[in-house]
Amino acid sequence: MPPLTVPTIQWLGDVDGQLRIIDQTLLPNELKLIELTDEQAVWEAIKSLRVRGAPAIGIAAAYGTVVGLRKLRDRPLAEARNKLQELIEYLAASRPTAVNLFWALERIRQTAAAAKTSSVDELSQVILAEAKAIHEQDRQMCHAIGRHGADLFQQQQHQRLLTHCNAGGLATAEYGTALSVIFTMADRGQQVQVFVDETRPLFQGARLTAWELAQRQIDSTLICDSMAGHVMRLGRVDAVITGADRIAANGDTANKIGTYSLAVLARAHGIPFYIAAPTSTFDLNIESGEEIPIEQREPAEITTIDQRSVAPAGIGVYNPAFDVTPADYIEAIITDRGVIQPVNALQIRRVLGIA
Amino acid sequence: MPPLTVPTIQWLGDVDGQLRIIDQTLLPNELKLIELTDEQAVWEAIKSLRVRGAPAIGIAAAYGTVVGLRKLRDRPLAEARNKLQELIEYLAASRPTAVNLFWALERIRQTAAAAKTSSVDELSQVILAEAKAIHEQDRQMCHAIGRHGADLFQQQQHQRLLTHCNAGGLATAEYGTALSVIFTMADRGQQVQVFVDETRPLFQGARLTAWELAQRQIDSTLICDSMAGHVMRLGRVDAVITGADRIAANGDTANKIGTYSLAVLARAHGIPFYIAAPTSTFDLNIESGEEIPIEQREPAEITTIDQRSVAPAGIGVYNPAFDVTPADYIEAIITDRGVIQPVNALQIRRVLGIA
Repeated sequence: MPPLTVPTIQWLGDVDGQLRIIDQTLLPNELKLIELTDEQAVWEAIKSLRVRGAPAIGIAAAYGTVVGLRKLRDRPLAEARNKLQELIEYLAASRPTAVNLFWALERIRQTAAAAKTSSVDELSQVILAEAKAIHEQDRQMCHAIGRHGADLFQQQQHQRLLTHCNAGGLATAEYGTALSVIFTMADRGQQVQVFVDETRPLFQGARLTAWELAQRQIDSTLICDSMAGHVMRLGRVDAVITGADRIAANGDTANKIGTYSLAVLARAHGIPFYIAAPTSTFDLNIESGEEIPIEQREPAEITTIDQRSVAPAGIGVYNPAFDVTPADYIEAIITDRGVIQPVNALQIRRVLGIA
Repeated sequence: MPPLTVPTIQWLGDVDGQLRIIDQTLLPNELKLIELTDEQAVWEAIKSLRVRGAPAIGIAAAYGTVVGLRKLRDRPLAEARNKLQELIEYLAASRPTAVNLFWALERIRQTAAAAKTSSVDELSQVILAEAKAIHEQDRQMCHAIGRHGADLFQQQQHQRLLTHCNAGGLATAEYGTALSVIFTMADRGQQVQVFVDETRPLFQGARLTAWELAQRQIDSTLICDSMAGHVMRLGRVDAVITGADRIAANGDTANKIGTYSLAVLARAHGIPFYIAAPTSTFDLNIESGEEIPIEQREPAEITTIDQRSVAPAGIGVYNPAFDVTPADYIEAIITDRGVIQPVNALQIRRVLGIA
């Protein structure tokens, strides 16, 4: 099965090239590419979810450092290195929860620090190469997740899946994490049907996941988030699978708000709940989910849709972008390095090759 | 605390009077009254949720029979009686799940059957009186539910509540069922804070419940349906309370889609889950929730908002309007005749005075 015709993130050319992304806020009504020409545009695109998904924002931020250095091509190298550090801190502040953002920017920082360069141009070339490596590695990690997941689901005879938010090609370099499992199953001719949670408030499930599944003609059914428990009770779901924004050392997983409810509902119905995520999503510096900061977003995301109010003026609103699912609720984490099962600190370190 | 200035449903005048309702589809942006001048308008208003909420649609349908008989004022009485039966069947087909609709129409049918009338005008007066009685009794039932619920919640020290959909004044003659408990708590000076699920796909929580709570200046916080599990896990909810559309003899309860998920989530967090409903919501003719028909509604309710698409064209959609919560998940049912606890067939019959 071919990848999306239009890549989520593209770098065209050399250090003077173009950073182009799909503006995901316009999907599915409009497939529009926008060029990000300075670091403010990259920051805004991440903050406003024009590019979103934990792996994708890491890739975009990595390229963003190259874009941000352009203005300094004629300046002393030391100034550019200082500017690079500022760029890294600036872009890292765009969103607080997904660890891939910090992971990608840290790779850029370390690469630049280790590089013996004699000009700004050379420094830019080094970090562009690193950004491209991050991008390409994510593509490979996504396909590896797909293979491991499709193997597991074939073995477990999971065919009727339920997913939340968008953990697809749009959230990554290509194919996605949770959706990579589904796409790989379809590529191999395994049976697969998908319930897609619409994922309020920003409808990433309805707008993005349903669009990706429809593009690949995979049997899918859109539901409201509140319907997941009902379809589980009707016996129509074999397994739940979502992506992740950050996974702590013990396996506690931050993902799009609503994921935790799904995990609890799945447990109550005896349905296994899976996370699919690349290595870059693990944050072994934190012991548990308690330490993951949860991004709070604007009330207007909930109270207005297309500038039209769906709630009375002045109503109190609570709008966390993520929640944390304790490791105990997770049957397995499907990574590019294999399947972590059971989900605990030891097994995570083993599969990631750290133990 | 005064009731809403504008009643949800009003009958002004005698049998030639006006049936006026708030068009709830326009709230909270516009408070518009519409007059329903024939049975088609009443049917359409119920079908399209201009008037909604199990008790309210029963009241509207009862008045609808009076409206429908108007054209037959100069016809023979026998013809009017036949027409009345047709009207009852027609209006009963507007929505399939809420039993109050059938209950109210059955009261009209029985009243008409028992009435010795000599003219169409007299027949109309008899059924108008019955419709007004249904309306007034619902008002009284709502206030009784409020008193019983506020007593129970004071005793249980429940202050931080979570509710779903709209079980308020807009869903009933006045005050509501679940919200009547909250309004009565506020009237008495009991502490009460409310999380309001927005209730996709039609936002009755955001549009209607948040509006009613804001009008009465009750401390409330709007969340997306998918956030309920997260706020429960944070320890911010003492109890969940919703209304009901039909309750079977064993206590299984049909209510707005998403209610079942809430009940499962509440159980998982050790939080009691309550139903508030008037006597008219019980359907003792059916043994369990298995027998309750679940209304399936149009895909467009999920895929479009204000005519704007939030999902790709042609995507499969599943849109059940209700789900069934098994009695086992329900801590108690708060009725106008007292609190049913534990929830089982025997206790239901005892409290309803049938045993």
